[in-house]
Amino acid sequence: MNKINIGLIGFGTVGSGVVELLQKRKVFIKNRFDSEFVIKTICDLDIKKRDTRGLKNTQLTTKIDDVVNDKDIDVVVELIGGLSPAKDIVVNSLKSGKHVVTANKALISNYGKELFKIAQENKCHLYFESSVGAGIPIIKSITEGIVGNKFKAIYGIINGTCNFILSEMSEKNCSFEDALKEAQRLGYAESDPTLDINGMDSAHKLAILAQLTFGKFLKVKDIYTEGITQISHDDIEYAKSLNLTIKLLAIAKKTNNKIEARVHPTLISKNHPLASINSVYNAVYLDADPLGKILLSGEGAGKMAAASGVISDLINFASKGADRKLICNLYDENTKLSLGNIDDVETKFYIRFLAADKPGVLSKISGILGKQGISINSLTQKAHNKTAAVPVVMLTDYTTEKKLRTALNAIKKLPAIKGTPVAIRMEKLW
Amino acid sequence: MNKINIGLIGFGTVGSGVVELLQKRKVFIKNRFDSEFVIKTICDLDIKKRDTRGLKNTQLTTKIDDVVNDKDIDVVVELIGGLSPAKDIVVNSLKSGKHVVTANKALISNYGKELFKIAQENKCHLYFESSVGAGIPIIKSITEGIVGNKFKAIYGIINGTCNFILSEMSEKNCSFEDALKEAQRLGYAESDPTLDINGMDSAHKLAILAQLTFGKFLKVKDIYTEGITQISHDDIEYAKSLNLTIKLLAIAKKTNNKIEARVHPTLISKNHPLASINSVYNAVYLDADPLGKILLSGEGAGKMAAASGVISDLINFASKGADRKLICNLYDENTKLSLGNIDDVETKFYIRFLAADKPGVLSKISGILGKQGISINSLTQKAHNKTAAVPVVMLTDYTTEKKLRTALNAIKKLPAIKGTPVAIRMEKLW
Repeated sequence: MNKINIGLIGFGTVGSGVVELLQKRKVFIKNRFDSEFVIKTICDLDIKKRDTRGLKNTQLTTKIDDVVNDKDIDVVVELIGGLSPAKDIVVNSLKSGKHVVTANKALISNYGKELFKIAQENKCHLYFESSVGAGIPIIKSITEGIVGNKFKAIYGIINGTCNFILSEMSEKNCSFEDALKEAQRLGYAESDPTLDINGMDSAHKLAILAQLTFGKFLKVKDIYTEGITQISHDDIEYAKSLNLTIKLLAIAKKTNNKIEARVHPTLISKNHPLASINSVYNAVYLDADPLGKILLSGEGAGKMAAASGVISDLINFASKGADRKLICNLYDENTKLSLGNIDDVETKFYIRFLAADKPGVLSKISGILGKQGISINSLTQKAHNKTAAVPVVMLTDYTTEKKLRTALNAIKKLPAIKGTPVAIRMEKLW
Repeated sequence: MNKINIGLIGFGTVGSGVVELLQKRKVFIKNRFDSEFVIKTICDLDIKKRDTRGLKNTQLTTKIDDVVNDKDIDVVVELIGGLSPAKDIVVNSLKSGKHVVTANKALISNYGKELFKIAQENKCHLYFESSVGAGIPIIKSITEGIVGNKFKAIYGIINGTCNFILSEMSEKNCSFEDALKEAQRLGYAESDPTLDINGMDSAHKLAILAQLTFGKFLKVKDIYTEGITQISHDDIEYAKSLNLTIKLLAIAKKTNNKIEARVHPTLISKNHPLASINSVYNAVYLDADPLGKILLSGEGAGKMAAASGVISDLINFASKGADRKLICNLYDENTKLSLGNIDDVETKFYIRFLAADKPGVLSKISGILGKQGISINSLTQKAHNKTAAVPVVMLTDYTTEKKLRTALNAIKKLPAIKGTPVAIRMEKLW
């Protein structure tokens, strides 16, 4: 019997889910993996307020050192999130020869390289399945499941809040504000939803995926990030009429020695599998050589979904031999790769603006686009109104971000144009 | 450096893909995993006809014993398929202390229990990722990725040939025969496509998935299996008009101590992610506790997709420590579980028959259905023709297979009914 002592730091939603699941699967883990996990210590600042019934043999503490300095603890499970004191906990645990399981996306995206190196130097494991997509085996699939492959591109729907809001706007024909309220009511959005809806949560997760697939450590602040707040119900309806869907995608692509990394609302074909990933579901669509395209999808958040990923990490750790060989040198960086500039990214665009319904307006607009070499593939102007401005929607051919922005700035200045034009990138995923 | 000697048996399409990929990823595997795979011996009955350029340091042979009896070979890669001599190769390799990687679905589905036990007794690993869905990490995800979960249901699109034919019939508005010809032209179907289109290939893979998820070893012959040959273009069109899609699904569900296992064409909602898995793509949709529903999809066949799964198995083997701990006791069977009878399975049904367009026919039919307690949810009769029979399509409420069959047998005997009624099960996947 392989007995493994766990020190759990952070006994909130996910932490209590982990304890619950370990207790529920005790016999299963014993029979199937010849292993027993003992929750030796739980550290939480609010430990006195937590429900600790059924944890008679567990030391309860508010002091991190009671875990990190305990020589009998084999694995530290860090579930407090954020950078401080999480980083110190993980670093000190690894340095004292403890293996670490964490669900902390901020930590891995900001300090992955440093932490992977410290883990390797101390011959310790660092598992982080739940940092992206909770229990969906995304990290496992990339690092082990399709490990002989080289990656060409990643497209991720990796923020459940945004995906819920966009799905809700589409299915219930409601506004962004109403969809957000519904997400908050159902517990799918925080009372302050900023980090979700501005795309930053997705950017953190994309940084982790880029590390694992391309071996490139990106700074989160260098990833071009655009949230979903400017998406209107009109855009959703236009998308539908064009057999398209709007998703907040986290995209990373490798071309020669450049890597593109960006998070933004994206129009994709309604027939693509990613288009049917709705509500709070997450998905990652990977283009790998030689395997081709694969899709992994599931619930990417929530107490038990996250706990499921942590338990998988623990069992995987237990299933390794006593001289556990480390998964791979994750800190080895591909130094030849550099991050491309968003200005140079080429996509097709959907653009929508309010224009006075007067002769000559469209010809002026197409003139400005033409000057930047941008071709218009289609144009829709649904309503006609001689007195008020009407929405005009155009789909362009491939163009660079820079050319599109230059054109939009010029269009915005036309007297016939009201408000700020909306531009949404389109991706062909096949 | 971890040097691993490979003995490859079977140098056909997949075998040559494996050699190609190992050569291509040599430096990557060395740098990232501190491992080197040496293809020590290749055994193939037609070895003289194969392209063996670039294999100067590899022993080429037609004798299986040159691999199985070679003490310097660490891992045997079995890629000949079928049961004989594949079973002897795998058994003898494991008994002589060699680890085994295989892509052989017939072998694992028929002899999994025995082979897993022999592997365990001899402290050897048996990897078989490519036996289901080629390189899509399905086996890995079930056995390791979401390992703390208990499984409730599996729904798989696990035969690329059938999925291509059904997609083609839907997209190109063509007949089964024309879609099959196109599949053969593109190399997606064998010249004798029987084992694909009659569902047997899916049944083999379902047996493997049921082993891994429910711990139940099913005999392939005990799995209710229905192919796609009776699906007409009419059915595809009716499905579309009902916002449904027809897929050949391999289904296994656990309810209490019973397991349902069946392969048949299935109507699913067009909005479900599985409905957008088209062409030769495969997908497995799993309902797990506590993770919820997850979907894994990708190319499930082909030289390099299968080679990709084999390489992942090899790298995963190499990444384990020298005292490699076995993944888990896969041969432990859940003896409390028994296979349910198809007669008792409850689903909704789509039924289509040709009926003379005469007064009273529909009332007779609904009378027969009513006698079995089957409610009709909707009825469509598109054409009217006083002289010829016209197609009638009905969707029923939930009923058992037995009741439906009893009703259909009675309906078939009505003088107004021409030909054999078609019945397609419907599944609600949310």
